[in-house]
Amino acid sequence: VLTWKTRELEGATLATFELAGGLAAPGDLPGIDLPAGLDRAKGLVVGGRGPVWLYAHLCHLAHPFAWVATQDPRLGAVVVQRHRPDAPPLGAVIGL
Amino acid sequence: VLTWKTRELEGATLATFELAGGLAAPGDLPGIDLPAGLDRAKGLVVGGRGPVWLYAHLCHLAHPFAWVATQDPRLGAVVVQRHRPDAPPLGAVIGL
Repeated sequence: VLTWKTRELEGATLATFELAGGLAAPGDLPGIDLPAGLDRAKGLVVGGRGPVWLYAHLCHLAHPFAWVATQDPRLGAVVVQRHRPDAPPLGAVIGL
Repeated sequence: VLTWKTRELEGATLATFELAGGLAAPGDLPGIDLPAGLDRAKGLVVGGRGPVWLYAHLCHLAHPFAWVATQDPRLGAVVVQRHRPDAPPLGAVIGL
């Protein structure tokens, strides 16, 4: 259903998903997980073309990471969760 | 920046946001919160036209609710978080 590519950035991992056929169905959500083995002491930037509900699920799964951002095609990565004092501010935009 | 309308459903509250001018900036996130006084023993369905990073922030804030869904304009409400045994399944689509 969903394949991942990851790239290590300074202080974060960029994880970009691709949907098989460009589509996902809500019923796929229970089987969709983040890539295994990522460093949760870093931030996680989630990217890819997909619906809001898929991002909402993935960001919920990303809660153990130091911080979480979603990649906006026009803006860059927008910080949407922060769980450590040294994380970038909520709403910060990070160029990739 | 953002105004809310809420409607009580059976077992959930539908909270629909509207962005002033239809736009939000990432820097607005720290000042954006869910409507006050909602019943967290129920589910929360978040609706409205806005970017992925806004939904990611709102769903993160919604973590204390029994379950969380996002409203998809074509599908209905898609369950993206569940925190109680009696919550609907992850990925369930709820007609509104």
